[in-house]
Amino acid sequence: MAAEELSMHLGIDIGGTKTDAVAIDQTGEVLVQFRLSTAYGASGVLSSAEEAVRGLAERLNSPISQISSIGVGVPGRVDSTTGRVVHAVNLGVEDLNLGSELSRVLEHEVHAENDVNAAALGAYHLLSARGWPETGWPASAIGDSSRHSMAYLNLGTGLAAGIVIGGALWRGSRGTAGEIGHIPIDPLGPVCSCGQSGCLEVLASGSALARQWPTEHPNPIQHLFEAAAGGDSAAMRIKSKLLESIASAVRILVLAVDVEVVVIGGGIAAAGDPLLEGVRAVLKERAQHSPFLGSLELAERVCLVPAGAPISALGAAFSGMKSTTIRGEQIRVA
Amino acid sequence: MAAEELSMHLGIDIGGTKTDAVAIDQTGEVLVQFRLSTAYGASGVLSSAEEAVRGLAERLNSPISQISSIGVGVPGRVDSTTGRVVHAVNLGVEDLNLGSELSRVLEHEVHAENDVNAAALGAYHLLSARGWPETGWPASAIGDSSRHSMAYLNLGTGLAAGIVIGGALWRGSRGTAGEIGHIPIDPLGPVCSCGQSGCLEVLASGSALARQWPTEHPNPIQHLFEAAAGGDSAAMRIKSKLLESIASAVRILVLAVDVEVVVIGGGIAAAGDPLLEGVRAVLKERAQHSPFLGSLELAERVCLVPAGAPISALGAAFSGMKSTTIRGEQIRVA
Repeated sequence: MAAEELSMHLGIDIGGTKTDAVAIDQTGEVLVQFRLSTAYGASGVLSSAEEAVRGLAERLNSPISQISSIGVGVPGRVDSTTGRVVHAVNLGVEDLNLGSELSRVLEHEVHAENDVNAAALGAYHLLSARGWPETGWPASAIGDSSRHSMAYLNLGTGLAAGIVIGGALWRGSRGTAGEIGHIPIDPLGPVCSCGQSGCLEVLASGSALARQWPTEHPNPIQHLFEAAAGGDSAAMRIKSKLLESIASAVRILVLAVDVEVVVIGGGIAAAGDPLLEGVRAVLKERAQHSPFLGSLELAERVCLVPAGAPISALGAAFSGMKSTTIRGEQIRVA
Repeated sequence: MAAEELSMHLGIDIGGTKTDAVAIDQTGEVLVQFRLSTAYGASGVLSSAEEAVRGLAERLNSPISQISSIGVGVPGRVDSTTGRVVHAVNLGVEDLNLGSELSRVLEHEVHAENDVNAAALGAYHLLSARGWPETGWPASAIGDSSRHSMAYLNLGTGLAAGIVIGGALWRGSRGTAGEIGHIPIDPLGPVCSCGQSGCLEVLASGSALARQWPTEHPNPIQHLFEAAAGGDSAAMRIKSKLLESIASAVRILVLAVDVEVVVIGGGIAAAGDPLLEGVRAVLKERAQHSPFLGSLELAERVCLVPAGAPISALGAAFSGMKSTTIRGEQIRVA
């Protein structure tokens, strides 16, 4: 037991309002987890992350020096090599050397990762553990980890994807792979915060929903779906457009990267199965008009992130491991 | 010399009207090359490929049994594992086990590859040899082959891209990575052959040009550009829309995959520098309205394929090598 107890990997996900903290062992089993509020601004983010790490170590009855690895997921543009974070607007952070600052106060190496990338790694791990959706593709091909590929489509305040190929994050040449939220798909669409028009993000994100369906309801997407089910014509129109735009995001990920599976998560995914079924219906309807699209079996390749799982914090923990074998699959963090 | 003479890698590119044949050594140097007409239909394609291989062997004064590897690039959907080719419409081929049929008649292993993927590998090699374009990204990052990534954007009759990451083709989970030609970017755009509307292919390919600017000129894109330069308003409008759509294809590749460099080739690339400068101008103009796009430096990351190089045949030769070191860079063919 002693040797196993030494393998403790901490993952921290710093969100706009709350911070998730988990500790996993080398097999990915969750040892402890808890949640705290995120304090605002650079010093707030640093103290929240420090508090999360110290809280986990305390619950593990371990000094921080005995922790195997620490990974932190954070929104914004993150240089995973240096640990520098810029433009984390929700956190009130313009420029912060999160990795090195946190390493200094904790006296432990810290790996920083963009939160959507971390969530992608977490979702990949969870699906590897719990079973991938049954797609039309032969299991033998899927089982080949060099071909096993997934995109995590995050429908949060913004829209972005994280790409995992053969167990490793594909961050791209400059760390911006999966930034499909700013691909315009309608020249006549609304103006996006990025300055372009008709971007996916302005059509299929939490902010897009808030603009079109303002509500005080704690679960706005559920509220929209209920209103649509009740026959509200505006809600039906907004819901329909939202589902079409999410389906377009799935289409872009499969056509450009040809990931086998697209996993949808983020606040919009809180609508649950009705959302998934709605997106699948759009994909199936489009396939009927295009044999080419039909041959891609898009509807079979989309699924929701397992409900309630702290995938970003889990993924942050995985991202902190340099290289390790999880349930027989090599998880490399390039 | 004897040992070196044994390393002869043949690459065949089977196009709709002509077949390119090259032989390279293990460093990628071209030993011999020639061109022949492509015969129509499955048996025609087979005999053309066989003739190309035998012609190369003859010029190399080598029996086929002494050839190190044979790779064949061919349009259509190609299973690079089995060598099966389906839907190669231009060649009159509906379904052909090209790899195994050719292996049988030549008594030599043959690797089959989609022609755009082969061209991507060829372009990657040529740029590695001749120098990558100067992008805004630090040379040290580019020099790291694990991050070195490129998309080859083929503007031929159709529109598709081949993706090379760290020297290896990324074919995707089902071999359809880079099929961005069928991403719709304008709901009001023309109907595409795939059944959707407003696809990139129907806006920015050779067939899109032929539909909008029918001409008997041997170089239709040059003809269009000359007419636009001469003040023809229809030509100016068509040219402008074409450049915008190509720029949109570049944007999709960088946002989704974050390849460092997008290399444009295919018949439309015959317009040369005016095309490249036109695409860059669109990308720069868009960057002025979007700080986010500006930060991606898209204009600096796009270039044309080196003129006159038989990149598809070269790439086919590389794809036939299982694993080899080219000019110090590991070229893996997964």
